[in-house]
Amino acid sequence: MSTLNLETASRVLTAGQEAAAGIGVAMNIAVVDTAGNLVAFSRMDGAWLGSTDAALKKAKTSALFPMPSSALGELSQPGGPIYGIEVTNGGLITFGGGLPLTAADGTVVGAIGVSGGMVEQDVAVAEAGAKAV
Amino acid sequence: MSTLNLETASRVLTAGQEAAAGIGVAMNIAVVDTAGNLVAFSRMDGAWLGSTDAALKKAKTSALFPMPSSALGELSQPGGPIYGIEVTNGGLITFGGGLPLTAADGTVVGAIGVSGGMVEQDVAVAEAGAKAV
Amino acid sequence: MSTLNLETASRVLTAGQEAAAGIGVAMNIAVVDTAGNLVAFSRMDGAWLGSTDAALKKAKTSALFPMPSSALGELSQPGGPIYGIEVTNGGLITFGGGLPLTAADGTVVGAIGVSGGMVEQDVAVAEAGAKAV
Amino acid sequence: MSTLNLETASRVLTAGQEAAAGIGVAMNIAVVDTAGNLVAFSRMDGAWLGSTDAALKKAKTSALFPMPSSALGELSQPGGPIYGIEVTNGGLITFGGGLPLTAADGTVVGAIGVSGGMVEQDVAVAEAGAKAV
Repeated sequence: MSTLNLETASRVLTAGQEAAAGIGVAMNIAVVDTAGNLVAFSRMDGAWLGSTDAALKKAKTSALFPMPSSALGELSQPGGPIYGIEVTNGGLITFGGGLPLTAADGTVVGAIGVSGGMVEQDVAVAEAGAKAV
Repeated sequence: MSTLNLETASRVLTAGQEAAAGIGVAMNIAVVDTAGNLVAFSRMDGAWLGSTDAALKKAKTSALFPMPSSALGELSQPGGPIYGIEVTNGGLITFGGGLPLTAADGTVVGAIGVSGGMVEQDVAVAEAGAKAV
Repeated sequence: MSTLNLETASRVLTAGQEAAAGIGVAMNIAVVDTAGNLVAFSRMDGAWLGSTDAALKKAKTSALFPMPSSALGELSQPGGPIYGIEVTNGGLITFGGGLPLTAADGTVVGAIGVSGGMVEQDVAVAEAGAKAV
Repeated sequence: MSTLNLETASRVLTAGQEAAAGIGVAMNIAVVDTAGNLVAFSRMDGAWLGSTDAALKKAKTSALFPMPSSALGELSQPGGPIYGIEVTNGGLITFGGGLPLTAADGTVVGAIGVSGGMVEQDVAVAEAGAKAV
């Protein structure tokens, strides 16, 4: 079974940084293993400090619930089936920017979390990172 | 007065696991006493890691407020009378999957919390567990 | 590579409970995976409530640092090389009662944490559990 | 005034990783700014999970109190002037492995924290990282 090593995590991080630089937004990018433990992280120069924790929590969210963080957000709005889920697990993020990382053999090996721009920008950078696994 | 012993808690856990297996969903199941203290817990193989904390918090919710966790959810929506209650007590869950456990003599002896599937599945498994008290 | 499934964790839990019953002490016993996530737990009737968290933290300690929890304690006394380590990782326990769980092929698959008696009793119960992997 | 950018933090991280590889120990390495906010992090393959938080806390310690983390340890032993300081700031580490990062002009720009080996190994890797600023 595939697992996430530092070489792969660094490649994901670099791909995310390049995508962020391409759109001119300074991002915080976190890569975690399947249990949500940190493997690699970088804060690009000028990125919002508050986005560091958001990136970490997005990555944790997509590790502990292996789906895009935004998928949880669709279900956790007021009146939704899992409204309030974000107070579990020490704090989750339920909007976009967290994505599972899937190896070539289909195994989920971890997750990426990106924060620093508009949510669509965070998602685009997370997708660029996830493609680099 | 009836209290929850480990034998009963284990019976509740087993009944929940059997119901979960019956619908083919790997669940986290927690059984707590009336103060929300953990008595018994199991994570079925392949259950989402993030659901561990959710199961514990659902059980705690239905212990500290002896009602179905979903009942709190009806009152804690935006504009509702207890909006935001979920940030108390170290984090509660206000959607379905937590249920009080009631002994034959009507005494509430604890609570069960289930997480791992769709909310209706969690509720069904919690009900199966609660019947086994 | 071996991993810890619920069947094995339950066998560890049962072996620990039998050893605890054999010495007449009510114990809290926790079994966690290699990342310290809870797999199975039981509180025996009459066990100290404060020992629940101690059992969980002992198991986490021996998962995150795969060695007996007491080994950390030898190094973390005042003046020792890792004095104060117990404030990391949300709280560790550095006295006896936590042990790694090792599969037949030598793989560490998780850890057990036991609390409820004198430390030597906790250690004896943890050893009985660990033998049942 | 010099500040810590990601390029420098990455150079520090790489120098630390090379030193760690040179002594054959898998390390967690964290680089933070002067406020203790994370800039860059890596967990080398096989490093203890529990050392992730230790590395982060060592770096935080040497950022918030700009001195080697071990210097705090000399003062925080039982009977010492700052006994118990490690429970402040969400948890500090008062043994070796945290070092301030100082720019060529003498400005402290952040800190490095290293954990994964014996304390002397952690210190050696932190020194190698700090030299690369």
